Amino acid sequence: MPKLNENYQHLKESYLFAEIAHRVAKYTEENPDKKVIRLGIGDVTLPLGSLALQGLHEGVDAMADSSTFKGYGPEQGYPFLREAISAYYAENGVCVDAGDIFISDGAKSDTGNITELFDVDNVILIPDPVYPVYVDTNLMGGKNITYLSGNAENGFLPMPDHSMHADIIYLCSPNNPTGAVYNREQLKEWVDYALANHAVILFDSAYEAFITDPELPRSIYAIEGAKRCAIEFCSLSKTAGFTGTRCGYTVVPKELVFPASNGTEMSLHAMWNRRQSTKFNGTSYIVQKGAAAVFTKEGMQQCREHIAYYQENARIIAETLTRKKIRFFGGVHSPYIWFECPMGMESWEFFDYLLTHAQVVGTPGAGFGENGKHYFRLTSFNNHENTIEAMKRFDELF
Amino acid sequence: MPKLNENYQHLKESYLFAEIAHRVAKYTEENPDKKVIRLGIGDVTLPLGSLALQGLHEGVDAMADSSTFKGYGPEQGYPFLREAISAYYAENGVCVDAGDIFISDGAKSDTGNITELFDVDNVILIPDPVYPVYVDTNLMGGKNITYLSGNAENGFLPMPDHSMHADIIYLCSPNNPTGAVYNREQLKEWVDYALANHAVILFDSAYEAFITDPELPRSIYAIEGAKRCAIEFCSLSKTAGFTGTRCGYTVVPKELVFPASNGTEMSLHAMWNRRQSTKFNGTSYIVQKGAAAVFTKEGMQQCREHIAYYQENARIIAETLTRKKIRFFGGVHSPYIWFECPMGMESWEFFDYLLTHAQVVGTPGAGFGENGKHYFRLTSFNNHENTIEAMKRFDELF
Repeated sequence: MPKLNENYQHLKESYLFAEIAHRVAKYTEENPDKKVIRLGIGDVTLPLGSLALQGLHEGVDAMADSSTFKGYGPEQGYPFLREAISAYYAENGVCVDAGDIFISDGAKSDTGNITELFDVDNVILIPDPVYPVYVDTNLMGGKNITYLSGNAENGFLPMPDHSMHADIIYLCSPNNPTGAVYNREQLKEWVDYALANHAVILFDSAYEAFITDPELPRSIYAIEGAKRCAIEFCSLSKTAGFTGTRCGYTVVPKELVFPASNGTEMSLHAMWNRRQSTKFNGTSYIVQKGAAAVFTKEGMQQCREHIAYYQENARIIAETLTRKKIRFFGGVHSPYIWFECPMGMESWEFFDYLLTHAQVVGTPGAGFGENGKHYFRLTSFNNHENTIEAMKRFDELF
Repeated sequence: MPKLNENYQHLKESYLFAEIAHRVAKYTEENPDKKVIRLGIGDVTLPLGSLALQGLHEGVDAMADSSTFKGYGPEQGYPFLREAISAYYAENGVCVDAGDIFISDGAKSDTGNITELFDVDNVILIPDPVYPVYVDTNLMGGKNITYLSGNAENGFLPMPDHSMHADIIYLCSPNNPTGAVYNREQLKEWVDYALANHAVILFDSAYEAFITDPELPRSIYAIEGAKRCAIEFCSLSKTAGFTGTRCGYTVVPKELVFPASNGTEMSLHAMWNRRQSTKFNGTSYIVQKGAAAVFTKEGMQQCREHIAYYQENARIIAETLTRKKIRFFGGVHSPYIWFECPMGMESWEFFDYLLTHAQVVGTPGAGFGENGKHYFRLTSFNNHENTIEAMKRFDELF
């Protein structure tokens, strides 16, 4: 009889989006004449840019002839893409060696799979609220989590507690769901803390392309010393609309070396390389060709135009909340707007209130952690018309 | 200081293909006039069929317009592909529910990731010789392995030892590297053994499309009772030449339910669903469109033509070995031919001998386990001309 991994019994049912879908379906069934607008979407809606499309078609075409056909590729990704991403970092003023960049099918896979490299016995800090994957993937491995409280007082940007030791620290900036962004000084404090504790920071920069202020770091490696303490996850999902096309990348610097209990040294870079070589067979060549086209000058210009479209939606939402004197977080360097539910409501209560009174769908903050219980997330991924209409209704409601 | 997963220290360096590349490079540098023929390739070489290409292009085209654009898809795969695979099983006389089929980026990922569902404390049987991923992914998780001896006496098809208990059993048929195929009676013995022991069989059928004899099972589910004891991994890599395009699928029947230590029941289907939903974001829509085209009538016809091409190469190799009275395994319902190294040589010794005397590259059996030390693998993935030429040289050498 196989003994199963009983840590799975400690996972909460992942019912957030299912429950939202259920409540919306029920409402629309009962109110077929009402137009529901979804500002809960965490997914892009604009089509891919023409450069990405061309790259993808070229990738497919290569598969049509023996002389250009691609079979198994390097598990780490093709050099052409690793180098293009290294150059993209360089454009943003950060030096990342192409050899430290691992291409994957997405940041979700990598943030989950990275947990395999660590022993069960570690002090792991995870912000609350945050993207639920960090918590669930650690629980699956039987690991204990210490939560870092994000709240209105710290602007949903928890800072290190210097009286406390940590081994592994998750940070997500710009944050999902709060949209809050660490500035350079704050990130430096985290890097300094990690170096002092010999800890590893797992830094999720999936939303970095939404940062427009050049003073805000788009990568943890913009901070001195970060290569000795940080792994960075990024993705083309939000940068280039690749949520359904699937391509991400993870930087594991060769500097990340830690002692093993037998006195030898172990390299996280070598371990991740071994993990990916053994349990992964590389990202589709076709997708990598599309991704490389994204990182060309024209490809990036198209990405910026798409992001500007979403940013304008975020501005419209933020403007409404400002006018209504509802305090919010994010919405500037992020596709997400996070605000306290009006009238002391809990997040699911507010969800129902907003759905029934304004036919607007958002995401209850409770889905992102205890600290989200009285908060609500709106996103900028719908189109202009719907976003304007939703905010008009919001305006009338409050 | 993070405590790392020290099980990685128990992994052998995965040097097999690197060492082959190194020795071949050295030889060609010293002998630039000699034409080296590679029959060590475990990768397809024919381009994709036109139907698959068309499906892939359509997938890309869908990404060009908001009305057809695809963002995040179901982590389990799109219903259109799960249903196409269910229909493919049905054509081969096996009933598999589309809801039990999980689409992924490849069987390598799935055979590796499935280990997460099991506790450290299990009796795990893995054949020797075999595809090294089963061993390495279990060692990474700190698991103990009991080897099932494959050898000339049992035709490299180890059978259950009824005096011994097992919890988890890996089987690969048609086998990599030996090409040996379990018949119906043999597989039935394994299924009966698993049911009697309440064990789980992890069945790798990646090479099933090479089976031409309708009497040989192409799926473990051709055996009565298998849905109560087996998970099956398959892939489009060898079926449709998707090694670089990346698409696989795993069947986890809902019948696979086992007791937990607290008396509750745990479903492997539900656990795998949770694992994939949490650590994976679905396979590229583009790739799934290409895969669905493979499973159309015309798409399958193209696959069969490509496989027939490789099978003719296998026939040529087998014919030569037969004429030379070298006993071999596989080569009929498999792209692999496995034979004992002539003149009592060890496999690396024979590798050098064949390279220097006939300029033919194969794969030393030692790379697949202890029992491969005196064996050698040739593959049928080169083209006809090279295969014929290599066998001509082989003929002259022995």
